[in-house]
Amino acid sequence: MEVYLDNSATTMVTEGVRDKMIKVLEEDFGNPSSMHMLGVRAENYIKDGAKEFAHILKVDPKEIVFTSGGTESNNLAIIGSVMANKRRGNHIITSKIEHPSVHEPFAYLEDNGFDVSYVSVDGKGKIVKEELYGMVREDTLLVSIMYVNNEIGAVQDIEEIIQELKKIKNDLIIHVDGVQAFGKYRIYPKRLGIDLLSISGHKIHGPKGTGVLYVNSKTRINPIVFGGGHQRGLRSGTENVPGIAGIGQAAVELYTDFDEKMDRMYQLKQHFIKEISKLEGVSFNGLTIKNDHNGEVFDMEVIKETAPHIISVSFEGVRSEVLLHALEDRGIYVSAGSACSSHSPKPSTTLAAIRLPKELMESTLRFSISDSTTREEIDYTINVINELLPMLRRYKRK
Amino acid sequence: MEVYLDNSATTMVTEGVRDKMIKVLEEDFGNPSSMHMLGVRAENYIKDGAKEFAHILKVDPKEIVFTSGGTESNNLAIIGSVMANKRRGNHIITSKIEHPSVHEPFAYLEDNGFDVSYVSVDGKGKIVKEELYGMVREDTLLVSIMYVNNEIGAVQDIEEIIQELKKIKNDLIIHVDGVQAFGKYRIYPKRLGIDLLSISGHKIHGPKGTGVLYVNSKTRINPIVFGGGHQRGLRSGTENVPGIAGIGQAAVELYTDFDEKMDRMYQLKQHFIKEISKLEGVSFNGLTIKNDHNGEVFDMEVIKETAPHIISVSFEGVRSEVLLHALEDRGIYVSAGSACSSHSPKPSTTLAAIRLPKELMESTLRFSISDSTTREEIDYTINVINELLPMLRRYKRK
Repeated sequence: MEVYLDNSATTMVTEGVRDKMIKVLEEDFGNPSSMHMLGVRAENYIKDGAKEFAHILKVDPKEIVFTSGGTESNNLAIIGSVMANKRRGNHIITSKIEHPSVHEPFAYLEDNGFDVSYVSVDGKGKIVKEELYGMVREDTLLVSIMYVNNEIGAVQDIEEIIQELKKIKNDLIIHVDGVQAFGKYRIYPKRLGIDLLSISGHKIHGPKGTGVLYVNSKTRINPIVFGGGHQRGLRSGTENVPGIAGIGQAAVELYTDFDEKMDRMYQLKQHFIKEISKLEGVSFNGLTIKNDHNGEVFDMEVIKETAPHIISVSFEGVRSEVLLHALEDRGIYVSAGSACSSHSPKPSTTLAAIRLPKELMESTLRFSISDSTTREEIDYTINVINELLPMLRRYKRK
Repeated sequence: MEVYLDNSATTMVTEGVRDKMIKVLEEDFGNPSSMHMLGVRAENYIKDGAKEFAHILKVDPKEIVFTSGGTESNNLAIIGSVMANKRRGNHIITSKIEHPSVHEPFAYLEDNGFDVSYVSVDGKGKIVKEELYGMVREDTLLVSIMYVNNEIGAVQDIEEIIQELKKIKNDLIIHVDGVQAFGKYRIYPKRLGIDLLSISGHKIHGPKGTGVLYVNSKTRINPIVFGGGHQRGLRSGTENVPGIAGIGQAAVELYTDFDEKMDRMYQLKQHFIKEISKLEGVSFNGLTIKNDHNGEVFDMEVIKETAPHIISVSFEGVRSEVLLHALEDRGIYVSAGSACSSHSPKPSTTLAAIRLPKELMESTLRFSISDSTTREEIDYTINVINELLPMLRRYKRK
């Protein structure tokens, strides 16, 4: 049996996405800027894609920018908005558990003279709100917060936080990295007060190389890539039409029967946690603090405080790579930390920020499901872990 | 009959490219950063793609960076190299006929305090060499020149120009926008002295949303997109694996039976020019200066001074949009000026730079063929033009 439980790293495209991309590649291959019919037909895919995202987010199609992925969306949002509004302030805020594609643009801006504050998180990965609110100054320009953490699935109280932030300073620009949240939550930027929202295609069964940035029509941003003035000058370059058709299709499919899908994913997550928590020396990051076992961990109410698709588990006494490859031998694909940075062997920032002891950090795996994960796949995984764990622990280094 | 003669705007993917992309989308969808087998398999496509380009360009695979397209490649090359080396100089040079994705990064750098010189071209679109050489100063950092012009197919004497430039100042960084040249010429950056070379996927029967930047291992560049440190930190973001597989496949296919393909394209170009030049009041931009008819225009030696795929024709007394749509009605797709910017109705920079009279600028069409264009398609197009032109001229505004 093959079980793909690395959906936070990337997902497989759906049949619908694949078929739509093939159609565009084969038939509607025109340059959207061309004046003839093939150009117009290509351009219509971009218009349709913008409408699809606008409908899902309840925003205007003109507020949708297509990018080459979540990383570019985050860069464009952060660097683009800070550069366009730098006269208004020199101070920017983010958290200690952001993805590198948020953290690194902040580091770049810090190198270029901006003053950056990094807000802490608690043991479950939730932002320390009072600390955040206390950071806001007269010259604070931007606050960037991720909705769902990619490593442990912690979910921020976005609505409450933004409301409070805008009460303190109502012209703050609010960026939300929604890469792990879009497709798992109904996100309405206008209602939530989000000015900039990043989305990635390949995390939602869309193609790699595609992303979206929602830009509030009132928020001024500068481009970071310059050229022919495509997409209202915000993102030059011939649009990736098959990619845009693909990401649009993926989004529409995901938000169809949405509640049922999320319910089913939470059921699977609960089932997995319930069964795995019967093992000795396991802890669920983002749900329990450190190794603090208790029955609560598989209460649906507690589980629903975290994202439906991510389960971060520390297995005492087993190194994560060892367990990862042992699982792989049995056809189960998971991640040790965040796959987006696993080629640079840095310690996980999120696990450090929640103060997980070092020995547990090195024993942590991330299981991430999707809406197409089945109960059988989860049961198989539970059985394999039950079988492998005692065996591997016997070999652990003293 | 349908005849697509807008291959400089974009091309159709080949069957081989399409099939490879589908395979990656369906089977090898892993995140190249994942530690398990699916990740390794995805990563291998990136390694293979880099090897394919390295082989074609005779460079090291480590000198290949995958981007989201020609526009990003040009931006990364220009902004990235200037920012990384700004202590060495404040002066940068480019030409007056560059694509917006080169021109606009220069304008951005000019806004940010860099001193920019724009070299002129002659009536055939060729850089005025003495003017260029005279521009080089002690603080000149970068020279960026396009190999083949996208509007008229003018080809620069890249080898001679770079040699001369490096004689004047041997630490100049040389960027070449090769978007319209790659796949039409054998380009060996090491031999030519090119430090940075931009390539676009969708101009060579590869997918939209893909590009390559060759970066000489000795040339320092800064990233323009920051994140997880992918591609040696030069381009963060999960790699577009199906796109990379596709652009690699396209490049390999193009450089197979390369000379035969180019010969055939030149034959078609010559045939088209020969037949169309029989009409009254037509001129071939880049080949003739203004409306200077003479037999030379269809000599193969003269034609080979221009790129094999682009034919820019001014039809006196007919507005280009009128002829474009009349051709479209007969199934022939061409471009009025450059499709990459046709949505912003600016006058063509190249046609202005070669000092084409305004009335001819507004009567200019670009026909661009590919290696799959057939003799029948060209003959059909010639016939349709022969039929339409006298008719449309009768309706011309006095």
